[in-house]
Amino acid sequence: MDAVLRQSKAVCPFLKKASPATLRALSTASRSSAAPETSSALIASSSPCGGALSKLQLLAGRCPVMGKAMAVQATRIGTSRVANANMGYRGVAASLSAAFSTSAAATAPAGARGLHHAAARTCPRPSATASSAPRTAHLHTSRSQEARAVDGHVFNDKVHIPTGVPKAPKAAKAAAGKNVNAGVAAAPAMLQTKFDYEGFYENELDKKHKDKSYRYFNNINRLAKDFPRAHMADKEDRVTVWCANDYLGMGSNPQVLRTMHETLDEYGAGAGGTRNISGHNRHAVHLEETVARLHAKEAALVFSSCYVANDATLATLGSKMPGCVILSDSLNHASMIQGIRHSGTQKIVFRHNDVEDLEAKLAALPLNVPKIIAFESVYSMCGSIGPIEAICDLAEKYGAITFLDEVHAVGMYGPSGAGVAEHLDFEAHRQGRPSGTIMDRVDIITGTLGKAYGCVGGYIAGSSQLVDMIRSLAPGFIFTTSLPPATMAGARAAIEYQMEYAGDRRLQQLHTRAVKENLAARDIPVIPNPSHIVPILVGDAEVAKQASDMLLRDHQIYVQSINYPTVPVGQERLRITPTPGHVKEFRDRLVHAVDSIWTELGISRTSDWARQVPSGFLGVGAPPAAENNPLWTDEQLGIAQAVQELKQQQQAQNGLTEALLAQEKQSSVAASA
Amino acid sequence: MDAVLRQSKAVCPFLKKASPATLRALSTASRSSAAPETSSALIASSSPCGGALSKLQLLAGRCPVMGKAMAVQATRIGTSRVANANMGYRGVAASLSAAFSTSAAATAPAGARGLHHAAARTCPRPSATASSAPRTAHLHTSRSQEARAVDGHVFNDKVHIPTGVPKAPKAAKAAAGKNVNAGVAAAPAMLQTKFDYEGFYENELDKKHKDKSYRYFNNINRLAKDFPRAHMADKEDRVTVWCANDYLGMGSNPQVLRTMHETLDEYGAGAGGTRNISGHNRHAVHLEETVARLHAKEAALVFSSCYVANDATLATLGSKMPGCVILSDSLNHASMIQGIRHSGTQKIVFRHNDVEDLEAKLAALPLNVPKIIAFESVYSMCGSIGPIEAICDLAEKYGAITFLDEVHAVGMYGPSGAGVAEHLDFEAHRQGRPSGTIMDRVDIITGTLGKAYGCVGGYIAGSSQLVDMIRSLAPGFIFTTSLPPATMAGARAAIEYQMEYAGDRRLQQLHTRAVKENLAARDIPVIPNPSHIVPILVGDAEVAKQASDMLLRDHQIYVQSINYPTVPVGQERLRITPTPGHVKEFRDRLVHAVDSIWTELGISRTSDWARQVPSGFLGVGAPPAAENNPLWTDEQLGIAQAVQELKQQQQAQNGLTEALLAQEKQSSVAASA
Repeated sequence: MDAVLRQSKAVCPFLKKASPATLRALSTASRSSAAPETSSALIASSSPCGGALSKLQLLAGRCPVMGKAMAVQATRIGTSRVANANMGYRGVAASLSAAFSTSAAATAPAGARGLHHAAARTCPRPSATASSAPRTAHLHTSRSQEARAVDGHVFNDKVHIPTGVPKAPKAAKAAAGKNVNAGVAAAPAMLQTKFDYEGFYENELDKKHKDKSYRYFNNINRLAKDFPRAHMADKEDRVTVWCANDYLGMGSNPQVLRTMHETLDEYGAGAGGTRNISGHNRHAVHLEETVARLHAKEAALVFSSCYVANDATLATLGSKMPGCVILSDSLNHASMIQGIRHSGTQKIVFRHNDVEDLEAKLAALPLNVPKIIAFESVYSMCGSIGPIEAICDLAEKYGAITFLDEVHAVGMYGPSGAGVAEHLDFEAHRQGRPSGTIMDRVDIITGTLGKAYGCVGGYIAGSSQLVDMIRSLAPGFIFTTSLPPATMAGARAAIEYQMEYAGDRRLQQLHTRAVKENLAARDIPVIPNPSHIVPILVGDAEVAKQASDMLLRDHQIYVQSINYPTVPVGQERLRITPTPGHVKEFRDRLVHAVDSIWTELGISRTSDWARQVPSGFLGVGAPPAAENNPLWTDEQLGIAQAVQELKQQQQAQNGLTEALLAQEKQSSVAASA
Repeated sequence: MDAVLRQSKAVCPFLKKASPATLRALSTASRSSAAPETSSALIASSSPCGGALSKLQLLAGRCPVMGKAMAVQATRIGTSRVANANMGYRGVAASLSAAFSTSAAATAPAGARGLHHAAARTCPRPSATASSAPRTAHLHTSRSQEARAVDGHVFNDKVHIPTGVPKAPKAAKAAAGKNVNAGVAAAPAMLQTKFDYEGFYENELDKKHKDKSYRYFNNINRLAKDFPRAHMADKEDRVTVWCANDYLGMGSNPQVLRTMHETLDEYGAGAGGTRNISGHNRHAVHLEETVARLHAKEAALVFSSCYVANDATLATLGSKMPGCVILSDSLNHASMIQGIRHSGTQKIVFRHNDVEDLEAKLAALPLNVPKIIAFESVYSMCGSIGPIEAICDLAEKYGAITFLDEVHAVGMYGPSGAGVAEHLDFEAHRQGRPSGTIMDRVDIITGTLGKAYGCVGGYIAGSSQLVDMIRSLAPGFIFTTSLPPATMAGARAAIEYQMEYAGDRRLQQLHTRAVKENLAARDIPVIPNPSHIVPILVGDAEVAKQASDMLLRDHQIYVQSINYPTVPVGQERLRITPTPGHVKEFRDRLVHAVDSIWTELGISRTSDWARQVPSGFLGVGAPPAAENNPLWTDEQLGIAQAVQELKQQQQAQNGLTEALLAQEKQSSVAASA
């Protein structure tokens, strides 16, 4: 039956969207809304054939597919056999009800599951497989006990919905507190018990505690004048932040702050309305012009966040384009997953960065069907980089458009900081010739103002008509207050600063190299990747949290542990993000602290992973792969030339990056002087 | 057939969610994904019974409801009749295909519709009504031409999907530009044409232009030092803003701005991460504490916006609680509608502010089913106020929880500015006794930091466990960058300022009264309501935009026209929002300008509406109703006492509000001195 359910759920949008609990609820007895009855009368209400009709059965009867089939069936076999036909249809629905109950029980909390099992034991159930059910003639040719028994089973099921909370005494107490007739809650007629909301919330939280996915927020107050340091709840309690997404320290950039102060004074705190009603202003206009220029696109549109930008854009495109199919990388960010889900259209997931898999899936779709390939440039939790050019090739070949999330790349890659797509044609963009480049071929680029640009907000960039359509149709854009003028002005200042000056992102890359090299030298398992992310594999939720807590408590280093659902279970990690501010002193402390904690907690090192998984786990323990070579090349970082010079000075090859950084520091000091 | 479709759509979640275009696409011929074929082979692929199977037919066969019914049917009538049964099932699906095609054609652009009609003319179609279809024996007992014809029809339909754009030449050109084999685009085999994305966007925009719902944003730069005035694109071009939601001018409040400047200097521009990863800080903690205190709730949670707060909270609750039903006021904001839609659970819409209708709908649901009543306190486009107490009563009676959006009321009502719910127990809250009050009984309150509080962001407030659950489960909260420290600090300062000082909202109410009185005196049709919103009925999209444009151009007054989809067609209006800064000079100019434009454009006045619709339209032209008495009473505004004093001074009754405002101004000047 599970296989049937699984298969059915994969196909039917109704079953796919409905939770087991919803299906269970629909399996309960129904009544006419035109004639309200008391709860007890409800239970006794019956179909013309005897026995209560479940809501699922009623829905099935009104479903244009099922209902018509029944009408056809009834007519085909003549009126004399309507009752039997009806029984047949009820039999089908009853089988399904049983299947849903089973499925629901499998995912329900332990307490509820017990009740389901008890019900199953006392109620005979019909044959449940599609092939055998029709052959058990008694089910469909008589008012069988089974059909009735299923109704009973379903009814029991219904009664127990609100008690799906393990802590029965507490739940009952909470329910009693809310209940006008508190005594009723304890009565056996559980139907008259109101749903226990507080018990439900508590139960959901218990589940998070039990699977170690409950999140404890650390109070981190990042100090503009002491970047990359922060104070905790107590102002004197200082730590070094090693996991923020203010990758370039633009949140404390003097030009950004000056712009924000001025804008605050001149235009106030908030925008005062939606973009349509008094919230559109020069800051929005200029920011969108700047973003469009950054990505060499015709237009751009700013949203409250890039979560909203991704969600609103994919939901709008997917729901508006007729029969649209969205092909989504398996590691895509939650905002894209939600946007695709909200579009209600067909989603096809392709394996992470797997161009062959994507092509097979594209080739299986008709050429004329609208398709969106949604993917990222830098995947933030593992640091891998999407094959943008190959995906553009496939999009052109199969008539798809590309939707590229550059959230973790804008400000960080390319001669103007426009992201990985720009970086791939470094010279062309440096010379101001975007036409025909990979970035030019990407249809929709989304980015954030809240990470490398140090502010908050998100955007899309693309053709004028695309942007105008999203502007005109996306509720998530239309019906919300604009970002504050100072935020938009600050973000624009940050983008323009990074368009002019590449020193921050080069220094960030050098610091990243230094951290990766020094961790590797100590056999610390960094998940290899070509980007600025330094993910250290732990592989256990509790140990990852423990390591994070120890770093904070014993070493004044803040690195949040990344657990499920942000990464899969068993892939828990510490995600480290160097910035231009993470100078040698901070880096040395970090590497030393991680090393000592790895020893103290006995966490697997790279060599351990190599022994356990000879082919490597997430790349850890595997031989070096070309795909993990840094995207910023030695030439682009000016290393090639510097190495020559350093070698001539007889510097040791070993301390190369550090030597380079020392040099960088000298020139940086000279530049700011 | 339309009625069948409408009814079916109302019941089946699949049909309800699927757009006509999707259904049309599903009506196309299908193929096995395991054996990719060329497009031409695809067209020829056929079912075992001959004739191509549409995707809808395949889906129906795999649907647990429909598929099983077919299996039962096949077994019942014996294997010798399987082919016929299959035909019957195909006949049903074919009828539906025809219905969907018709429906799709009705909503498709003119060009596509023409093609649909052409196809219909050349393809004989099966009887389409549920009652007659089964009776046309030849459809279900033979391999009828009709079934084949429907497939052909469907195929034609499919072929023409990508050309559903009126401007054929331009679309073809755009497609050719993208197409590697450009020549193919012109070939008769349209299946080989890629989807024309730019043509599609253009077509969507054309629709907006045609129905006058295309939005032109006005460039409004609200000046902190000249509130409520702004400059347009040109800094010298000054206008008075009469439609912002910075209701109290807190966006330029010195305490708020000072707090923001200080926070910006100390903690920088952005938060640097999600709440879980380095974006949680003292500003978030303090702001959430303040919000919880404001609403006398255990806890609160801050989001990027209240759009996100509503969306994320309703989507999470609705999808998590087993079998949850959400009852939604018919005028609810888009953010709630989206949240409910995203929850995927059952929605029941009740008539705006209609407690009887709500009760009937609640009573029809089993007591133990979890239910959320989602509604607003102040409905922003008409200014009506929700019956909060009555809804709380119903929620308790029927075991529901209440979800109250106070977005347009926070800062504006109640002794602490906590909103309408607080206002209803004015004295109890003034004395710090929230227990047992209406606000205390509301389960979830949502509010914004972007309107009366002058900043940006939104929140929910409720029980600790509710808030912790949303914090732990809502993707829209988890996976997005926190609001900037300065924004959170500024918002908190604004809330605390308004908790301490009620003068702004009292003055705002007096200005609202003055504007309403003066407009009424000139027979201008203000939609009556008890709140601070002043909606002036126009009733036509073009005229409303014209009036708005004339106000701006000829009178330097900015009032955005509110058209569909924000309000229904025929209810277009100008929505005016007075603030404490809209002193007599501004108010006189506004009333004079509106009056002259009403004359110039010949827009209906209140007396015209009264003649046209004797019972009143949206309340305009109807006799005064008690429900529209201002929520802020004369006593609460201190008017009762002042009136006594003024009367004793022999002031004319006519200019009472103005006389009061003159008095208010004197005391305000005295207070700030």
